[in-house]
Amino acid sequence: MTDTLPGTDARTIDERLDAARAAARILATATAAQKNAALEAIARAVETSAGVVVPANDLDLANGRENGMSLGLQDRLKLDDARLRALGDAVREVIALTDPVGEIVRGSTLPNGLKLSQVRVPFGVVGAIYEARPNVTVDIAALALKSGNAVVLRGGSAAENTNRVLVGLLREALASAGLPADAVQTVDDFGRAGATALMRARGGIDVLIPRGSAGLIRTVVEESTVPVIETGAGVVHAFVDRGADLDMAVEIVVNSKVHRPSVCNALETLLVDAADAERLLPPLAAALREQGVTLHADERARAIVADAEPATADDWDTEYMSLDLSVAVVDGLDAALDHIRRHSTHHTETIVTNDLARAERFLAEVDSAAVMVNASTRFTDGGQFGFGAEVGISTQKLHARGPMGLPELTSTKWLVRGAGQVRG
Amino acid sequence: MTDTLPGTDARTIDERLDAARAAARILATATAAQKNAALEAIARAVETSAGVVVPANDLDLANGRENGMSLGLQDRLKLDDARLRALGDAVREVIALTDPVGEIVRGSTLPNGLKLSQVRVPFGVVGAIYEARPNVTVDIAALALKSGNAVVLRGGSAAENTNRVLVGLLREALASAGLPADAVQTVDDFGRAGATALMRARGGIDVLIPRGSAGLIRTVVEESTVPVIETGAGVVHAFVDRGADLDMAVEIVVNSKVHRPSVCNALETLLVDAADAERLLPPLAAALREQGVTLHADERARAIVADAEPATADDWDTEYMSLDLSVAVVDGLDAALDHIRRHSTHHTETIVTNDLARAERFLAEVDSAAVMVNASTRFTDGGQFGFGAEVGISTQKLHARGPMGLPELTSTKWLVRGAGQVRG
Repeated sequence: MTDTLPGTDARTIDERLDAARAAARILATATAAQKNAALEAIARAVETSAGVVVPANDLDLANGRENGMSLGLQDRLKLDDARLRALGDAVREVIALTDPVGEIVRGSTLPNGLKLSQVRVPFGVVGAIYEARPNVTVDIAALALKSGNAVVLRGGSAAENTNRVLVGLLREALASAGLPADAVQTVDDFGRAGATALMRARGGIDVLIPRGSAGLIRTVVEESTVPVIETGAGVVHAFVDRGADLDMAVEIVVNSKVHRPSVCNALETLLVDAADAERLLPPLAAALREQGVTLHADERARAIVADAEPATADDWDTEYMSLDLSVAVVDGLDAALDHIRRHSTHHTETIVTNDLARAERFLAEVDSAAVMVNASTRFTDGGQFGFGAEVGISTQKLHARGPMGLPELTSTKWLVRGAGQVRG
Repeated sequence: MTDTLPGTDARTIDERLDAARAAARILATATAAQKNAALEAIARAVETSAGVVVPANDLDLANGRENGMSLGLQDRLKLDDARLRALGDAVREVIALTDPVGEIVRGSTLPNGLKLSQVRVPFGVVGAIYEARPNVTVDIAALALKSGNAVVLRGGSAAENTNRVLVGLLREALASAGLPADAVQTVDDFGRAGATALMRARGGIDVLIPRGSAGLIRTVVEESTVPVIETGAGVVHAFVDRGADLDMAVEIVVNSKVHRPSVCNALETLLVDAADAERLLPPLAAALREQGVTLHADERARAIVADAEPATADDWDTEYMSLDLSVAVVDGLDAALDHIRRHSTHHTETIVTNDLARAERFLAEVDSAAVMVNASTRFTDGGQFGFGAEVGISTQKLHARGPMGLPELTSTKWLVRGAGQVRG
């Protein structure tokens, strides 16, 4: 089987990074039409690839089962004809996005006549370190290519065979469209050393994007000397203020928690103002339970909703990603802000309120990527924000914060056009 | 003497970082008027501070002389009444700048009626690690405060006594204006451990700015787990194209090299097109020598300008910061681009040309923070670009590239205002 798999590569990591840099130079000045043609070739290759991808994927799945991989992870790892066609459609969505490269962000003519323009340019070489889901291989490559970047991938060993085939397809499609195959590379065949090399490749990799568990992201952040865009973890809070509309509170809290519990913008902690908890908490708890949510409540909440589980100290910092919810009764907005300050991962928080002053204080004082009034936390999403495909949700403050679209995969440079000006 | 110096502080580094965070929360919602009042108090304190600063500075200078500090470094370390008044003026220039906090960067109303706005917010706590120049203490604090950030400083041990007094003045001025003194802190009294603590204070420090030598910056970049904004080193190139206007070429090259040789945007390497080097190089060399510039030339350049020094292999990667210039003759634009690719630090490069196509190729293909046509490299500067005071010149691609103004000391957050919207 392995004989027929594409993507074997005798080059060292440094040789691959050099080749990625050379490819990035070509991509940087490629037109949107050229990049879209390559993406179209990729979409076609991916959606008709079941014959080569599924056998490799079966191999990974068999290895996974042998190693006791959970059913959930097996499902995330699995690719079949339908999923490959969906992956091709995702690439076509990237084709439809505006090319950010060349956008003039700002510009002016200086008093001495120098013409200044700050234009968007690709980063150059983007590194991605991710885990079991092989669709990330295609997604991140498509986003990187559209924004003019070469990409060097390090996927999880659990998807090694699948990723090898996918990378081979991507490289062939690039070449068929007249762009350098080396714009997509993998270092999976170097195992852990591949990830370490990417993290230390300052000057070789311009920006590194980890995608996966909180543990993976923490490791990359701590070990990388390459600039990292941190995506991810969401211990997301909703505060239901005294006087809040009950129906609205129930709708927002339930939607935030149960619409898709396994994602980073799902609600993990509900805070209710003590002054109104007797009115608000029982129907909130009932609606949540009706959806199968297990409540982990503090003493004050359990005094109102007696049969909730007692919350442990760890619960307040836990991203459940399941139908579990921490619940606390707090003494008004200040106590809610204080709780959020201590436990938030700075992803998304929402307040349900009818009070203008408290709404504005919440917006001003909560230090998170997205701060909402009377809206479901599930809206923190590149697609919902109108960006099209999403690179991830940044929870850091440098460069990008919140949902990242294609412009967030670019840098800028200053162009200065003169007619002989010098400084006096 | 030390008894009268302010700024002794018994708290641990963690306690100071916690206090900085608490101060940052207050600064984040302070109005521009409040921040300007504090800056005015700082300006007044600094410009009238000779009585307390000069004795401490004399102590540092005496220590420096004892330890064999160069005259150049002694000059950078020295503060006197005139320099303190100039430092006060620099703070007043920061007062005059627009407050970036609260600027709405973009916004929209989504189809479901959600109102989205991306607003500028302070980073929170900015860390600064720098070397001998004590004016950085006041400069960086003023810029950080104006942009709503608390700042934790680690200055060079050579300026320890001066910085202790200055930090004390800054803290007193903040308190006198009703803002928290803890918005400005130092960890100088912890020596190297202070710098290490700042570099590892992920979550405590939001962004770290190293200012100083290439070695200092490299250390911070490699050791820090906190996001770093890399400023600095400039191996800056000028390419004089065939057919270039000779007078313009001489003016631009001489200005780029000699206007202020010790700064990062000063020219370090001159490349001349072989096809026109016989015409261009002799007058360029003569004009440079007239200004006292020593030429370090490759063989082809020495064939034309015989008495230039031979360039060593290291010269092409050297930021002289002095009246020295590397000179090479290259085979046209492609060879110039190739040389720049191998030796540039991605700060600033300029082309002197009359050819439109080559000008546009240079702008498109050179991967540097500032790329110029027919202009002196000395224009890469926040003041020249119209930003007012300058935080530094970023040579990295993440977050900020090129001259950084106040907006580059901020992050953003997304405000989402709803009326009960949930995801379907």
